[in-house]
Amino acid sequence: MAVKAARRSATANGGAVGVAVVGCGVIGSAVCAALLLEGGTRGLLRRRSGVTVMLRHVVERDQVKAAEAGIPRKVMTADFGRVLTDPATQVVVELIGGLEPARTFVLQALRAGKHVVTANKYLLAVHGREIFAAAKRAGRCVQFEASCGGAIPIIGALTESLLANEITRVVGIVNGTCNYILTQMTRNGESYADALAGAQAAGFAERDPTFDVNGTDSAHKLAILSSLAFGVDVPLEEIEVSGIDRLCDVDLRFAKEFGYVCKLLAIGEKVDARGEGGGAGAGEGALSLCVHPTFVKNDQLLANVHGSFNAISVAGHAAGETVYFGRGAGGKPTSSAVISDILEIGLGTAPLLFARLPLLTKKAPGAFVARREAASRNYLRVTALDVPGVMGRVANILSGHGISLAGINQHESQAGAAVPIVIMTHGVKEGDVAEAMKEIDALEGITARTVRIRVLG
Amino acid sequence: MAVKAARRSATANGGAVGVAVVGCGVIGSAVCAALLLEGGTRGLLRRRSGVTVMLRHVVERDQVKAAEAGIPRKVMTADFGRVLTDPATQVVVELIGGLEPARTFVLQALRAGKHVVTANKYLLAVHGREIFAAAKRAGRCVQFEASCGGAIPIIGALTESLLANEITRVVGIVNGTCNYILTQMTRNGESYADALAGAQAAGFAERDPTFDVNGTDSAHKLAILSSLAFGVDVPLEEIEVSGIDRLCDVDLRFAKEFGYVCKLLAIGEKVDARGEGGGAGAGEGALSLCVHPTFVKNDQLLANVHGSFNAISVAGHAAGETVYFGRGAGGKPTSSAVISDILEIGLGTAPLLFARLPLLTKKAPGAFVARREAASRNYLRVTALDVPGVMGRVANILSGHGISLAGINQHESQAGAAVPIVIMTHGVKEGDVAEAMKEIDALEGITARTVRIRVLG
Repeated sequence: MAVKAARRSATANGGAVGVAVVGCGVIGSAVCAALLLEGGTRGLLRRRSGVTVMLRHVVERDQVKAAEAGIPRKVMTADFGRVLTDPATQVVVELIGGLEPARTFVLQALRAGKHVVTANKYLLAVHGREIFAAAKRAGRCVQFEASCGGAIPIIGALTESLLANEITRVVGIVNGTCNYILTQMTRNGESYADALAGAQAAGFAERDPTFDVNGTDSAHKLAILSSLAFGVDVPLEEIEVSGIDRLCDVDLRFAKEFGYVCKLLAIGEKVDARGEGGGAGAGEGALSLCVHPTFVKNDQLLANVHGSFNAISVAGHAAGETVYFGRGAGGKPTSSAVISDILEIGLGTAPLLFARLPLLTKKAPGAFVARREAASRNYLRVTALDVPGVMGRVANILSGHGISLAGINQHESQAGAAVPIVIMTHGVKEGDVAEAMKEIDALEGITARTVRIRVLG
Repeated sequence: MAVKAARRSATANGGAVGVAVVGCGVIGSAVCAALLLEGGTRGLLRRRSGVTVMLRHVVERDQVKAAEAGIPRKVMTADFGRVLTDPATQVVVELIGGLEPARTFVLQALRAGKHVVTANKYLLAVHGREIFAAAKRAGRCVQFEASCGGAIPIIGALTESLLANEITRVVGIVNGTCNYILTQMTRNGESYADALAGAQAAGFAERDPTFDVNGTDSAHKLAILSSLAFGVDVPLEEIEVSGIDRLCDVDLRFAKEFGYVCKLLAIGEKVDARGEGGGAGAGEGALSLCVHPTFVKNDQLLANVHGSFNAISVAGHAAGETVYFGRGAGGKPTSSAVISDILEIGLGTAPLLFARLPLLTKKAPGAFVARREAASRNYLRVTALDVPGVMGRVANILSGHGISLAGINQHESQAGAAVPIVIMTHGVKEGDVAEAMKEIDALEGITARTVRIRVLG
């Protein structure tokens, strides 16, 4: 009965919206603080949007944590059931993170007739289809601006502002931890281990940073961004992922020497039959999806995104390239996205848009290009003893695989020591590069595995 | 009678929306081309948004021009009255530019129950209040994403994505012509006259570029952006404007020498009682609004916006800085914004948002800070004969006005020739700088008026 009442009231909010925040971590407490500040943010929200947001429940198992975050006792609860049966709560804001109990809470909220706002990229990347379908069935919406790029309104750009575009490419720096570490390594010549320790000390990296540094978090965000950009459901296993955790500082120094900077990029693009990406005429091409450290030319905008900032570049057939930049993490910046999501529900625009846009509904078997068919430019670092003829044999192997070179550079060696041979290739298929690398590494005089880093084309 | 029918149908569009495009110039023909391409863009729009857009009329006095743009005879007309009485046309897209007849057409369209989409920044900067009030009275909306920053969704960012923020500063490169000219001058050392001629030859500047190069066009856009960001109506006369048409290439060379690049910036910011801008606690401060050539540090994002591209940086109390980058002009990029505006009307979100947001409704007498009270950092170039004591007297005048120096640099002179003394100041009030400059220019041995360029703080 109470659920039925909630179902009715969720569409009849008339300028006021009742909210339950679930999870009182960094983002949750920032959202609550903003919604509780009567003189400050709440008045601002009303003035700017005409919507009054009422924080009715804060669900947090750890009541001490909630109290420390300044949550008043009367809205605090450990029982999510109270939210489901409260007809005056129209929006459930899921900020627990992780898969469970987040998934269960979100599905229960939708079934109880609540709209959902979430910042949980992991949840959406894995269970997005199920959750969106449940929302459509319930006639409610899921808002998720905070799931990618923190304060950056990239979800709004893809779902509204760029609707008139065939999107051909999405390229993003979407993990602030990695970008902070890479910036420290590049600017101050720090080692990966030192930069990571520094990021943890500065609060830019979690105690367990595995998902960030190995690229998994970026892959979650790429799955969401690509689904919206290209209109297909993107299974995580279609994304080839490598992180920054195996980068050598010597490669970052070479990047600098050649006028590049190394960034962890999440790249989704339409490729034509020859595996070449981003063309205006890409039309119904297959998708290539990957996350990897990438060399970016110094004068490109993405090369100038420093520290914990994020940026996403989108190429559309009409708009051309647009880029969105801002803070990709942190309580306050992310709360900006979460609260605008709540306001758009209060304004009534979000439910309307969600009901009408075909989000994550299209399964697309065979829509993805096999990675070995995708093309890219490459930086290769071959490590060889300075024996006569090595350079020639390496060049022969490359040309034998149809790999043409944009540049080659052998640094001077100390007597008897191995030297790096640095090679920049033109655009070539991944598969050809992989095979060439295998052959090179089997040559006599090669003392370490060849390092390959993609170059943004 | 027909008008009444149109009034009803404009809200009952059920997935299809009838459009009249008025004006068939660069943007108009790009919009028409996209809407007419059944296999291409129209199918794409339907697929991405579920909305079917029907181009019902193209109003253009110059029928030859319209025919050359490939407009089919059956939709072509020179008579705007036909649009007003067509009940199947729900949206009028005004792409004539200029004040009249654009204003009259827009008001007539709203009165006839049509929604309006416009790219006309001049019209909105001058008659925005009147037009928005007419739209509210008629229960219709005005969409104007294309009025600022071409393809960049900055209007959507300010009116939706950043609703949870107290905006403290908006800084934009909003004129592609000027940015193209400045880029050519900086990169290739071209003179202003040569760069302008090149811009005209490349199609980046109009035959009469006055409004672009003297800063007027940027001021129009700043009026719109500031109105949305700060929630007050901004009269054009509150904006202090200077363009790039009096810039000397020597100052651009000095900029480079000191690690800056010169950009024409439109700046709106909240300032505190001491005239200092952008602070988080700016709260209810007054507004400082200006358009002028500005030195920007090389490693800032805005310094890396080249050629005809635009970018707008917005500082919000929660989001922090977000930056939006893309093509600021051109038929196809601008058509992306125009068509997404049409789709948002078709989806029903735009009318809802327009009805509920308090746009341009608040007159704010006394909301603006007198320019002489605003503070900024400055680059000063004093031109003096190399007579003993001049440098000392200049320094004395500056310190007499409480202007503290971040750096001073006197280049070597050829015997008897005037030399430039380059001075970088810390943040000081405009009024103090103006008075100091007057006194400096009255000194013996000063051979030319002192040049002042602001430095982005």
